Amino acid sequence: MANLTIALDAMGGDVGPRVTVPAALQALASNPALKLLLVGQPDAIQPLLAQCRAEQLSRVEIIPADGVIANDAKPSNAIRQSKGTSMRVALELVKTGQAQACVSAGNTGALMGLAKLMLKSIDGIERPALMTILPNQQKSQTVVLDLGANVNCSSDMLVQFAVMGSVMAEEVVNISKPRVALLNIGEEESKGLDNIREAASVLKETTSINYIGYVEGNELLTGKTDVLVCDGFAGNVSLKTMEGVIRVILSLIKSSSDQNKKRSWLMQLAKKWLKKRLMKRFGDMNPDQYNGATLLGLKGIVIKSHGAANEGAFKAAIDRAVQAVEKQVPERITARLNIVLPRSDQ
Amino acid sequence: MANLTIALDAMGGDVGPRVTVPAALQALASNPALKLLLVGQPDAIQPLLAQCRAEQLSRVEIIPADGVIANDAKPSNAIRQSKGTSMRVALELVKTGQAQACVSAGNTGALMGLAKLMLKSIDGIERPALMTILPNQQKSQTVVLDLGANVNCSSDMLVQFAVMGSVMAEEVVNISKPRVALLNIGEEESKGLDNIREAASVLKETTSINYIGYVEGNELLTGKTDVLVCDGFAGNVSLKTMEGVIRVILSLIKSSSDQNKKRSWLMQLAKKWLKKRLMKRFGDMNPDQYNGATLLGLKGIVIKSHGAANEGAFKAAIDRAVQAVEKQVPERITARLNIVLPRSDQ
Repeated sequence: MANLTIALDAMGGDVGPRVTVPAALQALASNPALKLLLVGQPDAIQPLLAQCRAEQLSRVEIIPADGVIANDAKPSNAIRQSKGTSMRVALELVKTGQAQACVSAGNTGALMGLAKLMLKSIDGIERPALMTILPNQQKSQTVVLDLGANVNCSSDMLVQFAVMGSVMAEEVVNISKPRVALLNIGEEESKGLDNIREAASVLKETTSINYIGYVEGNELLTGKTDVLVCDGFAGNVSLKTMEGVIRVILSLIKSSSDQNKKRSWLMQLAKKWLKKRLMKRFGDMNPDQYNGATLLGLKGIVIKSHGAANEGAFKAAIDRAVQAVEKQVPERITARLNIVLPRSDQ
Repeated sequence: MANLTIALDAMGGDVGPRVTVPAALQALASNPALKLLLVGQPDAIQPLLAQCRAEQLSRVEIIPADGVIANDAKPSNAIRQSKGTSMRVALELVKTGQAQACVSAGNTGALMGLAKLMLKSIDGIERPALMTILPNQQKSQTVVLDLGANVNCSSDMLVQFAVMGSVMAEEVVNISKPRVALLNIGEEESKGLDNIREAASVLKETTSINYIGYVEGNELLTGKTDVLVCDGFAGNVSLKTMEGVIRVILSLIKSSSDQNKKRSWLMQLAKKWLKKRLMKRFGDMNPDQYNGATLLGLKGIVIKSHGAANEGAFKAAIDRAVQAVEKQVPERITARLNIVLPRSDQ
C-alpha cells in the first residue's frame, strides 16, 4: 500500500480531541503504514501529542481548523455555516486527494449532508446510506444498511442499497453470492410498505443479486441473511434496539450478585470466570467495542463514529476506514453498478 | 368478579389444540373464578380434556367451529371466508357478551381485521393498535404500541396511541402520570418523519398527557419512558429485534462450554448453577415466557398470542386477557378519550 492517509475530524464527538487523539495514536501504533491528518484546533490537539514517540509523530500532521459543528446543530444550518470547521476541512482533504478517507464522530446529519455535497454520490446512487457490519450467530457477519441516513426511502433507493450491500458482503466479508433480504414486518409477500414490496419485485428479477425475500427484525443477528436492506428509519430503530438490549443484558450480567453470601470461594471463582467468558463472547456485539458506520455510495470514503465513542471505539472506526481504503470500496461499487443497474444517461 | 368468561380460538397458532387446550387447563387450575370457552373442532379438543378433573371440566365448554383460518392466508381473503371459523366464532362470543375477552394465536392480520369488523373501534380511535407491556431495567414496566397493526400511522393515530398507552400504564402498571415518548431516530426536535413530528407538537399541547419527547430504539428496555408510542412498522421492528437479540444471547449462555476440561466437578457445578441463575434473571424478557399483545382501541378485549407460543406462553396470553377484563380496559380508554380528545360528533 503506497499511500494510506486518513483525515480525522479531531474535534467531533461528545468528547473531542481527548478521545480522538489518543485513538489516533493507538491506530498509528497498530499499523505502521498509516498516516493520519488530525483536523482541528492545534491548541487542543498539540498537548495530547506530547508523550508521542518520534516515529509516530512523523506520521501525524495537524491540519488547523478553528470551527466546530455542534452535535445538536440543525444539519441544514450547520452545513450552511460549515466553512472552516474541522468536519468540512477533513472532507476537503478527501476531495482533494490528500487523504483517502475521513472519520468523524460529529453531527451525523451534517456529516451526511456535507459529505454528499463535497464528495458527490456515485453515478446511479440517489442518496448514500449508512452501513455497518454486524457479527452473527453463524460465526459470520451481516451487512446492514441503511441505518438512518434516509428516513424516506424509495424502492429505487432500496434496490441501490441491495447492490452496495452485496458488494460489501463479497469484498469485505468475503462471501460469494451473498444472500440479500429486505427488512419487513412479516415474511409473506403481501406484507409491509409499498416501497418495500416494489423493491422486492425488482430484486426478484435482478439475477446478479441473490435475493432471498423478507426477513423480520428477529433475524438481525441470526445470520439468516448476509445483507439486510432496510429503510433508514427502521434500520436505525433495529440497530439501536439491538445496542440497547445488549447494554441492558451486559449490565445485568455485570451486576448479577449472589444473594446467598455463604457460598464458597469456589462459587465466587466460577462466577467470575463465567462473567468474563460471557463478556468476551458478547464483546464483538458490545456497542462500546464495535464502532463505525460507513457512508456508502459516495465517491470518497467517510466513516461515522458514534458520538459517544471511547478511545477504543474511535480506533475501531479508524480501522474501518483503513479497511475501506484497502478494499477500494467506492471503486468496487461503481464497477458493480455499471453491470447491475440500467444507466439513465446511456 | 361475578363473571369471568374468556373465549379461546383453540385451533389458532402453529400447533393448535395440543398447545391451546393444555394451556387452558393450566389457566383454569391457577384461577378458580375463570371459565373458558374452547372454540374449534370438538374431535380435536375433546380427547385433550380426557385427563381433566371434574371441577375444571365444569368450567370448560367446547363451542363447535369447523373452519380454521390458515396462518399464511391473505387477511382480506381470510376475512371474506371467515364464517364458521374458530377465530370468528370466538370473536362473536365477545360481541354477544357470552365472553368478556378472546385469545387467539392465529393469523395476525385476519384477527385484527375481523376484530375491528365485529367489535368496532372505540369512538375517537381510528384504528386499533397492538400493545404489549415489557419489563424494564428500572424494575418497572413499559407499555409499547403499535407493534404492527398499522404500517402507516397518521399523527392523529399516534396521539390516540399515546392516550391509550397512558391509560394502560396507569391502570395496569399502576404508574401515576406515566411518561409518554415517541420512538424516533434522534432526540432532536427536527428529527424523523412528518407524522411523528406532528404528533409531537400535538402531544406537547395536551396537558393530560405527560409527554417527554423522542426516544431512540436503545431505550426500549431502559425504563426512560413508561409509554413508548411507535408507528406499527418501527414498533414491530423494534420488538422483533429485541426478541431476536435476547434469543441469540440466551442460546450463547446455554451453549457456553468450558474448553478447559480439567476443571473440577465442583467448578462444573458452580457453573451450572450460575447459568441457571442468569437464565432465570433474563426469564421475564424471554419471548418464550412472556406473551400476548393486546389489540387496544376496540369495544371488546382481544389478545393476540405468538403463533409459535408453547403451553406456558399461551397461558400467559390468557392471563393477559384476564387482567384486561379485571381492569376494564376498553371502558377506561373510552372514559379517558372523552376527556382528552376533541369529539368530532359534538
